[in-house]
Amino acid sequence: MLKVNEYFGGNVKSIALENVEGVATVGVMESGEYEFGTSTIEYMTITSGILEVMLPGEETWTFYSKGETFVVAKDVRFKVKASQQVAYYCLYV
Amino acid sequence: MLKVNEYFGGNVKSIALENVEGVATVGVMESGEYEFGTSTIEYMTITSGILEVMLPGEETWTFYSKGETFVVAKDVRFKVKASQQVAYYCLYV
Repeated sequence: MLKVNEYFGGNVKSIALENVEGVATVGVMESGEYEFGTSTIEYMTITSGILEVMLPGEETWTFYSKGETFVVAKDVRFKVKASQQVAYYCLYV
Repeated sequence: MLKVNEYFGGNVKSIALENVEGVATVGVMESGEYEFGTSTIEYMTITSGILEVMLPGEETWTFYSKGETFVVAKDVRFKVKASQQVAYYCLYV
Protein backbone atom coordinates (compact mmCIF):
# COMPACT_ATOMS: atom_id res chain seq x y z
CA MET A 1 0.00 0.00 0.00
CA LEU A 2 1.33 3.42 -0.93
CA LYS A 3 2.25 5.43 2.13
CA VAL A 4 1.28 9.10 2.45
CA ASN A 5 3.30 11.23 4.88
CA GLU A 6 2.22 14.54 6.34
CA TYR A 7 4.44 17.21 7.89
CA PHE A 8 3.93 20.68 9.34
CA GLY A 9 0.26 20.15 10.10
CA GLY A 10 -0.47 18.87 6.59
CA ASN A 11 1.25 21.79 4.82
CA VAL A 12 3.69 19.31 3.28
CA LYS A 13 2.49 15.93 2.05
CA SER A 14 4.38 13.20 0.24
CA ILE A 15 3.88 9.73 -1.21
CA ALA A 16 6.66 7.15 -0.85
CA LEU A 17 7.87 4.95 -3.68
CA GLU A 18 10.60 2.46 -4.43
CA ASN A 19 11.73 1.23 -7.83
CA VAL A 20 14.95 0.51 -9.73
CA GLU A 21 16.02 4.14 -9.21
CA GLY A 22 15.89 3.73 -5.43
CA VAL A 23 13.79 4.88 -2.48
CA ALA A 24 12.09 8.22 -2.97
CA THR A 25 9.08 10.40 -2.31
CA VAL A 26 7.05 12.77 -4.42
CA GLY A 27 5.44 15.60 -2.53
CA VAL A 28 3.84 19.00 -2.48
CA MET A 29 4.53 21.94 -0.17
CA GLU A 30 2.06 24.72 0.55
CA SER A 31 3.57 28.19 0.31
CA GLY A 32 5.55 28.85 3.48
CA GLU A 33 8.92 28.35 5.13
CA TYR A 34 10.00 24.98 6.48
CA GLU A 35 13.03 23.36 8.09
CA PHE A 36 13.67 19.70 7.28
CA GLY A 37 16.12 17.19 8.71
CA THR A 38 17.83 14.45 6.71
CA SER A 39 18.77 10.92 7.73
CA THR A 40 20.30 10.03 4.34
CA ILE A 41 21.79 12.03 1.50
CA GLU A 42 18.86 13.55 -0.38
CA TYR A 43 18.62 14.54 -4.04
CA MET A 44 15.74 16.99 -4.24
CA THR A 45 14.41 17.81 -7.71
CA ILE A 46 11.75 20.44 -8.30
CA THR A 47 8.84 19.03 -10.32
CA SER A 48 6.71 22.18 -10.42
CA GLY A 49 7.15 25.68 -9.05
CA ILE A 50 10.11 27.42 -7.47
CA LEU A 51 11.77 26.67 -4.13
CA GLU A 52 14.25 28.81 -2.25
CA VAL A 53 16.79 26.74 -0.34
CA MET A 54 19.36 27.46 2.37
CA LEU A 55 21.67 24.52 2.97
CA PRO A 56 23.83 24.07 6.09
CA GLY A 57 26.64 26.61 6.21
CA GLU A 58 24.96 28.90 3.71
CA GLU A 59 23.78 32.38 4.59
CA THR A 60 21.84 33.20 1.46
CA TRP A 61 18.86 31.65 -0.28
CA THR A 62 19.25 29.95 -3.65
CA PHE A 63 16.34 29.54 -6.07
CA TYR A 64 15.67 26.15 -7.63
CA SER A 65 13.02 25.83 -10.31
CA LYS A 66 11.37 23.08 -12.30
CA GLY A 67 13.84 20.38 -13.31
CA GLU A 68 16.65 21.60 -11.06
CA THR A 69 18.18 19.42 -8.34
CA PHE A 70 19.99 20.21 -5.12
CA VAL A 71 21.79 17.72 -2.87
CA VAL A 72 21.52 17.70 0.91
CA ALA A 73 24.02 15.91 3.14
CA LYS A 74 23.07 13.21 5.65
CA ASP A 75 22.07 14.15 9.22
CA VAL A 76 21.70 17.87 8.70
CA ARG A 77 18.90 20.40 8.82
CA PHE A 78 18.09 22.69 5.91
CA LYS A 79 15.57 25.44 5.21
CA VAL A 80 13.28 25.96 2.27
CA LYS A 81 10.67 28.54 1.41
CA ALA A 82 8.04 28.72 -1.29
CA SER A 83 5.83 31.61 -2.36
CA GLN A 84 3.47 29.25 -4.22
CA GLN A 85 2.76 25.54 -4.02
CA VAL A 86 5.78 23.50 -5.06
CA ALA A 87 6.03 19.86 -6.13
CA TYR A 88 9.24 17.88 -5.65
CA TYR A 89 10.82 14.47 -6.12
CA CYS A 90 13.22 13.43 -3.34
CA LEU A 91 15.61 10.49 -3.81
CA TYR A 92 17.23 9.04 -0.66
CA VAL A 93 20.70 7.54 -1.15
CA MET B 1 -5.08 22.11 2.78
CA LEU B 2 -3.35 19.81 0.31
CA LYS B 3 -5.75 17.25 -1.08
CA VAL B 4 -4.74 13.60 -1.45
CA ASN B 5 -6.70 11.50 -3.96
CA GLU B 6 -6.85 7.73 -4.04
CA TYR B 7 -7.84 5.51 -6.97
CA PHE B 8 -8.04 1.80 -7.63
CA GLY B 9 -8.32 0.87 -3.96
CA GLY B 10 -5.32 2.97 -3.02
CA ASN B 11 -3.03 1.55 -5.72
CA VAL B 12 -2.75 5.03 -7.22
CA LYS B 13 -2.46 8.08 -4.98
CA SER B 14 -1.91 11.71 -5.88
CA ILE B 15 -1.56 15.13 -4.28
CA ALA B 16 -3.15 18.14 -5.97
CA LEU B 17 -1.39 21.46 -6.46
CA GLU B 18 -1.91 24.77 -8.19
CA ASN B 19 0.70 27.40 -8.99
CA VAL B 20 1.74 29.69 -11.83
CA GLU B 21 2.22 26.63 -14.08
CA GLY B 22 -1.44 25.62 -13.64
CA VAL B 23 -3.50 22.95 -11.92
CA ALA B 24 -1.71 19.63 -11.53
CA THR B 25 -1.17 16.53 -9.43
CA VAL B 26 1.88 14.54 -8.46
CA GLY B 27 1.25 10.88 -7.84
CA VAL B 28 2.53 7.35 -7.53
CA MET B 29 1.16 4.16 -9.09
CA GLU B 30 1.75 0.69 -7.72
CA SER B 31 2.81 -1.83 -10.35
CA GLY B 32 -0.27 -2.89 -12.28
CA GLU B 33 -2.52 -1.98 -15.18
CA TYR B 34 -5.01 0.87 -14.96
CA GLU B 35 -7.52 2.69 -17.15
CA PHE B 36 -8.01 6.39 -16.53
CA GLY B 37 -10.53 8.89 -17.89
CA THR B 38 -9.79 12.53 -18.62
CA SER B 39 -11.99 15.59 -18.22
CA THR B 40 -9.34 18.04 -19.49
CA ILE B 41 -6.30 17.72 -21.73
CA GLU B 42 -3.58 16.13 -19.59
CA TYR B 43 0.19 16.47 -19.90
CA MET B 44 1.61 13.46 -18.06
CA THR B 45 5.33 13.53 -17.26
CA ILE B 46 7.13 10.58 -15.72
CA THR B 47 9.05 11.63 -12.60
CA SER B 48 10.48 8.21 -11.70
CA GLY B 49 10.21 4.77 -13.27
CA ILE B 50 8.78 3.59 -16.58
CA LEU B 51 5.15 3.61 -17.70
CA GLU B 52 3.65 1.84 -20.69
CA VAL B 53 0.81 3.80 -22.24
CA MET B 54 -1.93 3.00 -24.77
CA LEU B 55 -3.78 6.13 -25.90
CA PRO B 56 -7.19 6.13 -27.59
CA GLY B 57 -6.98 4.70 -31.11
CA GLU B 58 -3.64 3.03 -30.45
CA GLU B 59 -3.21 -0.74 -30.53
CA THR B 60 0.29 -0.99 -29.14
CA TRP B 61 1.94 0.08 -25.91
CA THR B 62 4.51 2.88 -25.83
CA PHE B 63 7.13 3.18 -23.09
CA TYR B 64 7.64 6.51 -21.35
CA SER B 65 10.48 6.90 -18.89
CA LYS B 66 11.74 9.52 -16.48
CA GLY B 67 11.45 13.03 -17.89
CA GLU B 68 9.27 12.03 -20.84
CA THR B 69 5.79 13.50 -21.38
CA PHE B 70 2.73 12.24 -23.21
CA VAL B 71 -0.43 14.22 -23.91
CA VAL B 72 -3.94 12.83 -23.47
CA ALA B 73 -7.00 14.41 -25.09
CA LYS B 74 -10.04 15.62 -23.13
CA ASP B 75 -12.92 13.24 -22.35
CA VAL B 76 -11.21 10.02 -23.34
CA ARG B 77 -10.09 6.86 -21.60
CA PHE B 78 -6.50 5.59 -21.78
CA LYS B 79 -4.58 2.63 -20.40
CA VAL B 80 -1.29 2.48 -18.56
CA LYS B 81 0.74 -0.31 -17.06
CA ALA B 82 3.73 -0.35 -14.78
CA SER B 83 6.00 -3.21 -13.79
CA GLN B 84 7.40 -1.21 -10.83
CA GLN B 85 6.17 1.77 -8.86
CA VAL B 86 6.02 4.89 -11.04
CA ALA B 87 5.84 8.56 -10.05
CA TYR B 88 4.27 11.12 -12.34
CA TYR B 89 3.37 14.80 -12.68
CA CYS B 90 0.07 15.52 -14.42
CA LEU B 91 -0.80 19.01 -15.66
CA TYR B 92 -4.46 19.69 -16.52
CA VAL B 93 -5.03 22.27 -19.26
